Amino acid sequence: MDSAVTLHEARAAGFSPYALSFRYGQRHAVELEAARRVARAGGAVEHRTVQVDLSAIGGSALTDEISVPRDRPEAELGVGVPVTYVPARNTVFLAVALGWAEVLGARDLFLGVNALDYSGYPDCRPAFLEAFERLAAVATAAGAEGGVRVRVRAPLLEMTKAQIVLRAEELGCDLGLTHTCYDPPAGPAVQACGRCDACTLRLRGFREAGRTDPLAYAR
Amino acid sequence: MDSAVTLHEARAAGFSPYALSFRYGQRHAVELEAARRVARAGGAVEHRTVQVDLSAIGGSALTDEISVPRDRPEAELGVGVPVTYVPARNTVFLAVALGWAEVLGARDLFLGVNALDYSGYPDCRPAFLEAFERLAAVATAAGAEGGVRVRVRAPLLEMTKAQIVLRAEELGCDLGLTHTCYDPPAGPAVQACGRCDACTLRLRGFREAGRTDPLAYAR
Repeated sequence: MDSAVTLHEARAAGFSPYALSFRYGQRHAVELEAARRVARAGGAVEHRTVQVDLSAIGGSALTDEISVPRDRPEAELGVGVPVTYVPARNTVFLAVALGWAEVLGARDLFLGVNALDYSGYPDCRPAFLEAFERLAAVATAAGAEGGVRVRVRAPLLEMTKAQIVLRAEELGCDLGLTHTCYDPPAGPAVQACGRCDACTLRLRGFREAGRTDPLAYAR
Repeated sequence: MDSAVTLHEARAAGFSPYALSFRYGQRHAVELEAARRVARAGGAVEHRTVQVDLSAIGGSALTDEISVPRDRPEAELGVGVPVTYVPARNTVFLAVALGWAEVLGARDLFLGVNALDYSGYPDCRPAFLEAFERLAAVATAAGAEGGVRVRVRAPLLEMTKAQIVLRAEELGCDLGLTHTCYDPPAGPAVQACGRCDACTLRLRGFREAGRTDPLAYAR
């Protein structure tokens, strides 16, 4: 959902976005199918999926055999680092994006991180994004030769999930194409469990925005 | 060669090293077999290989169908960014290493980069390593919670290839187990072409150190 709205923000700001997804060992590849739909609908010039096997280093409920927590009270979300945290995931994703940007001659990296409803991930905070921008300035051939600086842009950083739902509406971004659930039920009839942290945050966003989520939930 | 000596440096400094290799779309996977031999001989506690498909973003003679240059005059090496530069490769490798360090509870990342004989790669310079260390401080759960700082250690950074050859000897590191060539000839009789930039730098290092390279070269 955040990635989809970010793609539309980039388009609305006049950019010609190249979309990048990752097959990183997540247990549910259904989000990659959603990414393809979102990239097409959002007008990405091109969409690539890069395989980065983070399951080889373990340490997360999203890639390991650790159980995804369900039905956590909303007050617990955003407190501490959850078991769904994938170590250094955004660092790895931004590093690959930086490489592709260098190949394309692009100098703006957009990502859909969100520091308010961020579920406790350290690599979604403004200090992380600023540090990555400073790294990018010295990490690339263009940077080494005193060329253009790469900018890391996170247009949703200060928004609540409710604000993101309303912003999607303004930008014509169809959130029915997106996938959020950490642990989707089997079968085609439902698209999301409605009980993991990601579903809980998403549903609260729609509720607070006074809108109905177009996805079919198991409960 | 640099990675192998770095592993021995870490052991000599009293660390228990965990070795990490990458299948990143390089055209010659023979270096991964060499890495396994080097990790075993160098006393790594564990050795993992992570797949990161950088060929999906293109842009290098090491992963694309661009020709590897041969027989370049030594004076040209180290001038400008060569076609064998893989965009953001060390940024991606360090990011994955940071993730594994977080899972292991490790706080020291060793890498075998070398700023003198560095062939013009921007992500082998001290400014890059310092910027990554600052990023690591805010990118991980431990960092976010005010925990221990990750250190990026590059013991070979200021050494010439000749000094690395002599240091390997001191540390008991068998350089005959290592692989350097960008474009190894087919067949088991020879291990290296002797004509790509990497071979040229390696052979010059042995020559300047007054030692003989144990590898079998095509010329």
